Amino acid sequence: MSGGDEADRVRAFSEFRQRMNQRILAEDNQVVRRFFALDTQTYRAGALDVKTKELMGLVASMVLRCDDCISYHVAQCREAGVNRDEMFEAFSVALVVGGSIVIPHLRRAVDFLDRLESGVVGAAPAHDHG
Amino acid sequence: MSGGDEADRVRAFSEFRQRMNQRILAEDNQVVRRFFALDTQTYRAGALDVKTKELMGLVASMVLRCDDCISYHVAQCREAGVNRDEMFEAFSVALVVGGSIVIPHLRRAVDFLDRLESGVVGAAPAHDHG
Amino acid sequence: MSGGDEADRVRAFSEFRQRMNQRILAEDNQVVRRFFALDTQTYRAGALDVKTKELMGLVASMVLRCDDCISYHVAQCREAGVNRDEMFEAFSVALVVGGSIVIPHLRRAVDFLDRLESGVVGAAPAHDHG
Amino acid sequence: MSGGDEADRVRAFSEFRQRMNQRILAEDNQVVRRFFALDTQTYRAGALDVKTKELMGLVASMVLRCDDCISYHVAQCREAGVNRDEMFEAFSVALVVGGSIVIPHLRRAVDFLDRLESGVVGAAPAHDHG
Amino acid sequence: MSGGDEADRVRAFSEFRQRMNQRILAEDNQVVRRFFALDTQTYRAGALDVKTKELMGLVASMVLRCDDCISYHVAQCREAGVNRDEMFEAFSVALVVGGSIVIPHLRRAVDFLDRLESGVVGAAPAHDHG
Amino acid sequence: MSGGDEADRVRAFSEFRQRMNQRILAEDNQVVRRFFALDTQTYRAGALDVKTKELMGLVASMVLRCDDCISYHVAQCREAGVNRDEMFEAFSVALVVGGSIVIPHLRRAVDFLDRLESGVVGAAPAHDHG
Repeated sequence: MSGGDEADRVRAFSEFRQRMNQRILAEDNQVVRRFFALDTQTYRAGALDVKTKELMGLVASMVLRCDDCISYHVAQCREAGVNRDEMFEAFSVALVVGGSIVIPHLRRAVDFLDRLESGVVGAAPAHDHG
Repeated sequence: MSGGDEADRVRAFSEFRQRMNQRILAEDNQVVRRFFALDTQTYRAGALDVKTKELMGLVASMVLRCDDCISYHVAQCREAGVNRDEMFEAFSVALVVGGSIVIPHLRRAVDFLDRLESGVVGAAPAHDHG
Repeated sequence: MSGGDEADRVRAFSEFRQRMNQRILAEDNQVVRRFFALDTQTYRAGALDVKTKELMGLVASMVLRCDDCISYHVAQCREAGVNRDEMFEAFSVALVVGGSIVIPHLRRAVDFLDRLESGVVGAAPAHDHG
Repeated sequence: MSGGDEADRVRAFSEFRQRMNQRILAEDNQVVRRFFALDTQTYRAGALDVKTKELMGLVASMVLRCDDCISYHVAQCREAGVNRDEMFEAFSVALVVGGSIVIPHLRRAVDFLDRLESGVVGAAPAHDHG
Repeated sequence: MSGGDEADRVRAFSEFRQRMNQRILAEDNQVVRRFFALDTQTYRAGALDVKTKELMGLVASMVLRCDDCISYHVAQCREAGVNRDEMFEAFSVALVVGGSIVIPHLRRAVDFLDRLESGVVGAAPAHDHG
Repeated sequence: MSGGDEADRVRAFSEFRQRMNQRILAEDNQVVRRFFALDTQTYRAGALDVKTKELMGLVASMVLRCDDCISYHVAQCREAGVNRDEMFEAFSVALVVGGSIVIPHLRRAVDFLDRLESGVVGAAPAHDHG
């Protein structure tokens, strides 16, 4: 929650996410595996481009208040070319729709974005589920 | 909830929304009035265009499962040039992020979109709060 | 959802609520019955007075976006002496904490309050569960 | 919301759901179609039987407070052999986990269950998405 | 959030939960104490067995996205004889109902289950409130 | 999540909040800045006093289950003169409205309150957004 050891936290989280995703997909549960495949497919370019889809994923994650999902989509948005002003406009939509309860997540999102921009935190891997 | 008298329902709702918005804004509560002004300002073109912002508002409304907000943003999206395929891609993001609990709202959103496209339901008024 | 037949809707809802509460309490499920008893107990005067507790119940209902609960607590607040300006301040807290997604519920809450004040809708019964 | 014209409401809703599901599946959006297929697959017997899965779907729908989903799973539970006492125990879990905000949905669930048991409302169709 | 020091985290959390529950129950607030008693009563065998009730508690916790509640019910489910395949079917219901926003919680649930199965984390105590 | 290093965690969080709020307000996004100003304005004395407004903010934060917001409003409530019995009555309203899913947040709220009362954690700063 503090920003002090954020870089380590992000790295540890990234490894944890990769490891657990593999663990989950190794399980013999077809519904779960198909859901993960569908999640990946959702953000591919179609009638809407990847940038717009990732912005929608970001705003949805913010109003539902899931920090891991927010970090993930902030990184994906940056990969898709969303600049800082655009990111803050997405934040503003989430803040107004979702209310002040979104503010703690906004703070962590901005901190994460700062670290991405300063290079402390590496780029996101290819889409790998939430 | 049924589709049978949907057109009347939409008209009645539209009148109700206008009337109550006026009633609320006539009240001497500055926080509420400022919130309504801020809500309008949020969807104006800036670093992101109106179309992208309305799509974000639509997806946020769907994952938070508010029918009135969804209808409103579906109409606004159409005004901003979102076509049917794009609308369904926005629906698909909301469905995958928010889960099957979104499905009843998706059905009503598609019904509302069908009526907008067939001209049964008129265009949305200028942005007037949720 | 429209305001047109609101008075009938409120009366029908009130009868439905009474009838179903009796039906539920007649059932042989001790957990459900105890929960209903606990719900009633929660809003009794204690360290905080009834007015403050009903205002808290109102704001909680608004940010969780449950129209039936909102109507119920608006009526209870009025019984407890909450005036219109105070009611709107409670609305403003709910709006800022919960965001624009609360607006459709705010409209219906204000419409319900208008009807209570004009005498179209009768006073609330003693606390009877949500 | 009132119980008076509930039977008509249920019939109209059932027709609306069927019609809109067909409309949605006719659309050329693979993510949405795959999600609907996955939703159906989720409740098939596997390591857990259909009855247990439908009870889980019911409780999930109640704590997320979606009336259409609740009605759907109440009907499916009955088809799977859940009796009235068992149904109320599922209700009690949802009520305690989700709180008094669930009560309005509980009232409508019990009313729907009463109608199912009295034969006023017909059995549910095979699983067809939320 | 990372899996690295999860065992310590679980132990520390378990002690914290016990200590705070005692602290809360020592307080002179009858509503809170009665709620805790009711919570315990909810999961006792009745028309439905403990296993089914704990599975419903698990799915409710997942769609409401509360990690502490999920860990608690995963442990209780295991005590009640839920095997790994059954656990994943419960996860799949929660994932499909609640959407991709559930995925981060699913990862932590699977990590916790892995540790329970490997014996790193001890069995759950008797039901003690959330 | 454990209580062991809670004092450090609170201090680190407090510094993080201050720093990120400044960072966010320095950004050239008028909607976000206006929202923050509106959030501050919301809790000022008006028709209702500060104590009642902070109690409403506390209950709203608990039913929406945001730990940072809960800690913030617990501290603000204490500054506004809310005593321990009153605080627990606010907790009881949140618990009954929001259900057992609120319990983990209640535990952390009580731990935070204990530390405030023992002087381990300092008083809250003037209202500064969530």
